[in-house]
Amino acid sequence: MAKEQKVTPWEVEGEVDYERLTREFGTSFISEKIKKRIEKLHPLLRREFYFSHRDFDKWLESYDKGKKVSIITGRGPSEKMHVGHLVPFLVAKSLQDEFNCEVFIPISDDEKFYIKENLTFEKALEYSKDNIIDLIALGFKPGKTFIFEDFVYTDIYKFAARIAKRITYSESKAIFGLKPENNIGWGFYPAMQAAHILFPQFMRGSHLSVVPVAIDQDPFIRLTRDVAVHPDFNFMKPCALHSKFLPALTGAVKMSSSEGSQIFLTDSQEEVKRKINKYAFSGGQSTAEEHRRLGGNPDIDVPYQYLKMIFEDDDKKLKNIRDDYKSGKMLTGELKAYTIEKINAFLKEHQKKRELAKKQLEKFLMK
Amino acid sequence: MAKEQKVTPWEVEGEVDYERLTREFGTSFISEKIKKRIEKLHPLLRREFYFSHRDFDKWLESYDKGKKVSIITGRGPSEKMHVGHLVPFLVAKSLQDEFNCEVFIPISDDEKFYIKENLTFEKALEYSKDNIIDLIALGFKPGKTFIFEDFVYTDIYKFAARIAKRITYSESKAIFGLKPENNIGWGFYPAMQAAHILFPQFMRGSHLSVVPVAIDQDPFIRLTRDVAVHPDFNFMKPCALHSKFLPALTGAVKMSSSEGSQIFLTDSQEEVKRKINKYAFSGGQSTAEEHRRLGGNPDIDVPYQYLKMIFEDDDKKLKNIRDDYKSGKMLTGELKAYTIEKINAFLKEHQKKRELAKKQLEKFLMK
Repeated sequence: MAKEQKVTPWEVEGEVDYERLTREFGTSFISEKIKKRIEKLHPLLRREFYFSHRDFDKWLESYDKGKKVSIITGRGPSEKMHVGHLVPFLVAKSLQDEFNCEVFIPISDDEKFYIKENLTFEKALEYSKDNIIDLIALGFKPGKTFIFEDFVYTDIYKFAARIAKRITYSESKAIFGLKPENNIGWGFYPAMQAAHILFPQFMRGSHLSVVPVAIDQDPFIRLTRDVAVHPDFNFMKPCALHSKFLPALTGAVKMSSSEGSQIFLTDSQEEVKRKINKYAFSGGQSTAEEHRRLGGNPDIDVPYQYLKMIFEDDDKKLKNIRDDYKSGKMLTGELKAYTIEKINAFLKEHQKKRELAKKQLEKFLMK
Repeated sequence: MAKEQKVTPWEVEGEVDYERLTREFGTSFISEKIKKRIEKLHPLLRREFYFSHRDFDKWLESYDKGKKVSIITGRGPSEKMHVGHLVPFLVAKSLQDEFNCEVFIPISDDEKFYIKENLTFEKALEYSKDNIIDLIALGFKPGKTFIFEDFVYTDIYKFAARIAKRITYSESKAIFGLKPENNIGWGFYPAMQAAHILFPQFMRGSHLSVVPVAIDQDPFIRLTRDVAVHPDFNFMKPCALHSKFLPALTGAVKMSSSEGSQIFLTDSQEEVKRKINKYAFSGGQSTAEEHRRLGGNPDIDVPYQYLKMIFEDDDKKLKNIRDDYKSGKMLTGELKAYTIEKINAFLKEHQKKRELAKKQLEKFLMK
């Protein structure tokens, strides 16, 4: 029997029923009309990994009317970035390319610092710096992309304070499942998060922002939408695009930090090969013979999922792989080898861009 | 029967038994040895309005050994400053003059903004600016006095965050008597307050700071002393000097904000005269005849208390007034007239200095 579903911003357990989640959270499925608008964008968008939204139709309408729109998506830097962390940023970049709009990227070093008992202040700052290099390397537009770190661009506190006044401890507690023994930074953090999401409106005035975010983070979006319309602000309710969870290499629902469950953006080519071969959860059969006879299941195969969501842009090639794997023509080893090749090509390029990014910090960091 | 004593950082009720408070809070009375060191300082110090302390003896020792010491005292700007607000600053200035040390003055516009439901963000900033002018006008030494406003010098958030990690919601709740429906800014504020008190050590490294503070604020001092020695910081425990409560004009235990209970630093000479005559609680008798016969009680007379604590520096004159009032030789009207004259002389000078202070902001504001 499957474990009971449990999805909150701080834990995801059991098999996830995304339809039920959408119903429970009161979000909307992405309509056929919206699909048309994103059918040439990043695989994560056009292959339905982003499956739900709040008011993204209004965001598109706003854009069509020539109004200013923007994207905001953040990063909590508690470690070096891995493939799973890329998801919202690849989507943000794709949307920026398509709609030529501003992207705001808050780096919540404070969040991770509050929540992770053993993360030191110095280490939090170090991860921030490193993660920012990865983000710039993704190719966001300079002059239209603003990265800001809570512990560096501390002006954000001014905005967070205004929001904090309108969030009760009860609300914060409910969102985080806070306990009385948790620290007061943690309890304050929802205000900071809402300040991030509303930052484009604080800075640029009235316009719609969309937040690409995993569905488990929706409670923050709801809270922020409620706060946005408080008379103190009279902001527009920010929109959201909700994703499913990218599985860890091992097939676990969410990427975790245990060895072998993730591929870091700074991993060597050898490392990637080793990890995929050793850890990647396969939808194939236990022997080559059996696989030839019965075929594999791409829908639970992690290498295939990685190709589908991120690393194989070519729809035709992806279809061929799917068909061949399902029929048994393509073996697990071959699928893994192809995935390793694609990931390594991406990482080789990314690591080169990281070196260039180190010289571009000034162009992206909010003053 | 007197109301039961209740003293917490957010309310003072009933008649205050300072001896009991000192026992309950576990602070120390100011010793004869310490008294010797402050017997020529501001009346508030030498006339025992400051009656209790934590480690102020160590602060003096440190100074004597040639070590760096400093003073820190803040202001929560929720209105224009009145006479009661002067207390810790007059003491800080007197200590600075005597010990030639640095003074740090945090302006907690965020605190008041969180706590006062109807105080807008803009108004909080406006009061801050106005209050800062009053503080500079008191004559602190430029180059040795650092004023910083939480909503302007937002770098303070970095320090507050490090402290917030080490304060639980339970602790914050206990100090403030927080309820679940209170906002999360309020719950976070103890971290900001502790960051203010530890700011000299964050900025200047290891040395002792003393905080002149009303005794009801001691729970913050205790909390900060506990946090200071956490391995994250390894700071020295800040020292404190505790004052009694300066009564409102009407004689109420603490200055409140109702009309007539206070004299603002920007009040006109006429206004002062009117308020003292109309509202000031008198220790005199109901008729002049009775007063001549029975004498007045200076210990409950508010004009006398104001003279004693702030406005009459001359010990001999003060003694004469006390004797004459007690014997009935000096009438209530005469005592009030003298007090009005002294307060107005102070305010006239202060208001002139306020104009000069407006041009000196840059010399005092922390960058």
